[in-house]
Amino acid sequence: MTYERDNIRAMQGYTSGEQPDDARTIKLNTNENPYPPAPGVSEALRAFDPIDLRRYPPATARPLRTQIAALHGLAEDEVIATRGGDELLRLLITTFVEPGRAIGTTRPSYSLYGVLAAIHDSPVFEVDLTDDFGLPADFAADCNRNDCALTLIVNPHAPSGRLFSAEEIRAVASESKGVVLVDEAYVDFVDPGIRYDVLPLLREFDNLIVLRTLSKGYSLAGLRLGYGLGPASLIQPMLQKTRDSYNLDAVSQVIAASALADQTYARSTWEKVRSERVRMESALQGLGFTTWPTQTNFLLAKVPDDGPSAADVYAHLKNRGVLVRFFGTAGMDDKLRVTVGTPDENQRLLNLLNELYGTSTAEGH
Amino acid sequence: MTYERDNIRAMQGYTSGEQPDDARTIKLNTNENPYPPAPGVSEALRAFDPIDLRRYPPATARPLRTQIAALHGLAEDEVIATRGGDELLRLLITTFVEPGRAIGTTRPSYSLYGVLAAIHDSPVFEVDLTDDFGLPADFAADCNRNDCALTLIVNPHAPSGRLFSAEEIRAVASESKGVVLVDEAYVDFVDPGIRYDVLPLLREFDNLIVLRTLSKGYSLAGLRLGYGLGPASLIQPMLQKTRDSYNLDAVSQVIAASALADQTYARSTWEKVRSERVRMESALQGLGFTTWPTQTNFLLAKVPDDGPSAADVYAHLKNRGVLVRFFGTAGMDDKLRVTVGTPDENQRLLNLLNELYGTSTAEGH
Repeated sequence: MTYERDNIRAMQGYTSGEQPDDARTIKLNTNENPYPPAPGVSEALRAFDPIDLRRYPPATARPLRTQIAALHGLAEDEVIATRGGDELLRLLITTFVEPGRAIGTTRPSYSLYGVLAAIHDSPVFEVDLTDDFGLPADFAADCNRNDCALTLIVNPHAPSGRLFSAEEIRAVASESKGVVLVDEAYVDFVDPGIRYDVLPLLREFDNLIVLRTLSKGYSLAGLRLGYGLGPASLIQPMLQKTRDSYNLDAVSQVIAASALADQTYARSTWEKVRSERVRMESALQGLGFTTWPTQTNFLLAKVPDDGPSAADVYAHLKNRGVLVRFFGTAGMDDKLRVTVGTPDENQRLLNLLNELYGTSTAEGH
Repeated sequence: MTYERDNIRAMQGYTSGEQPDDARTIKLNTNENPYPPAPGVSEALRAFDPIDLRRYPPATARPLRTQIAALHGLAEDEVIATRGGDELLRLLITTFVEPGRAIGTTRPSYSLYGVLAAIHDSPVFEVDLTDDFGLPADFAADCNRNDCALTLIVNPHAPSGRLFSAEEIRAVASESKGVVLVDEAYVDFVDPGIRYDVLPLLREFDNLIVLRTLSKGYSLAGLRLGYGLGPASLIQPMLQKTRDSYNLDAVSQVIAASALADQTYARSTWEKVRSERVRMESALQGLGFTTWPTQTNFLLAKVPDDGPSAADVYAHLKNRGVLVRFFGTAGMDDKLRVTVGTPDENQRLLNLLNELYGTSTAEGH
């Protein structure tokens, strides 16, 4: 017999991007930062005394939360540190969504949202983005009409890369009757000239939470460290009640602290990614791809109409050692999502595409 | 306004044992192993290349699971690696318990069980143990009558230290209509002469899961690494569906592997703890404490009737730099739970108790 709950039996788990064992594969498929973590991470690892592992770690990661609070000009009780952004998403659902009540998001969006909702036995209410991945004006009203207890907005948006403005987020927070999460997994790659910043809104609304992660901006996807920022009334129930009692191990807390301490290094990687993003955008357009404006470390690119399908291009690249992401879902089956790598990695991709499309427009490097 | 679900608003979070910042405090309150982790852990930390943190970790911790499976003579699909035992407990509830259905356990038991049930909005059905912390014969029948979807048995038992036999576990698994979890957090400290082993039962029943942790036996409480062993039909839904998509970071996976690889070292710490356990038992009895037979790395000790209360003894020891655990709950308010430390730590505790009780029965060391 089966002991699974009906909703668990009926659901599919999250599909991670491919993680090949082959170190030579160029991985432009899971939006990892192409540069190593800060030099201080290496020192923190070397300096860590293993005997400290004998004891339980700081349960609420207080030293790390103090550091994060200072970084953002917030109070310590407005910060929760979590095992990747994923844990924060789960805690939001556990804490604020009665099973069966809807969770609102956009279509398309980060595919994990639907998986977490299915685990919780809650429906997902998806609002279609506009043709150019814009947020419809009636988004919050639609979510309210469907009694959404929680609304999840990834901003900059995945998988398009588009940035919604702080004014748009403000409008959603203001109008929403439930909790609103702005998933800023990719925010570090936003052009600073845009002056995007939703953190001041945390002082204005009691229903707004912001998610950050060290996975991308700090080159620490392997560490699983994220955090949530928001009013204490939303943060504290997750921190004191629904979080696993020791959710962050002692090593991770120390490594995260060392990475966050070196903002200069982190910013240098963001700058390099932005610079390559511009080059890739122009090169892909030169090959006949359609791209969308992106403020992330990836580009969404529609393959040229008169060439091979996106599925075929994906397979062709994979056979030659370059992984990109092909979703194949409705509206996405003519597109590839390409992570911005190092200049060499990006050039390898462009060279392969040049061969495939028989052109010679690639810029030298 | 509050956005918390009603059940979350009404509940209290888990209360961790005190973790003083003062390194001089002798911590005999949270059942940590008093010895450092295996020498290989230090080497694994030094050898870890920080650039590996740039990429996502192995999502299902496959290399580690292969090693754990080999250690126990099981197949890889019968193993899930989790962030401490705590994550496994949560996954069991999420996967197998419809909210509102009961979770069975003993009274007393590990206090986290009730907290996790409250988060899930499920009642806990508690069956009183016998006066000497034995499992009542009608335990499973009682759980069935209360429609328990999951039964949680910590064995050896906490906070008493008593070991239920494999035959008793077999009877519970055989009779239970729901899933049965044997939480073997302390199993490494069981006297090998007893030949306790429930793993063969995993071949016999489709509803039995065993929890293990590296927190105590491998001196890695700070690492947050546990695992579940059971039939693939129970393990796979948790591994593939309800687990956070990357639940274990890359460093933890490697450190855990290095600790598990050195069974000789781990066993040497278990042997030392067992030897001190015997000494402590006899010394505490000599001071007038009542103790219960324990197969763990702690002792439950009732204070002498004609002396200060357990609360007072706890406070007296704490003032002098020795922390033990005082629960103060019904049936426990005349008892202290004392972790077995190093010979020096234990002697410091005994010296303080000798002073308090004005005797001179302490053995030298």
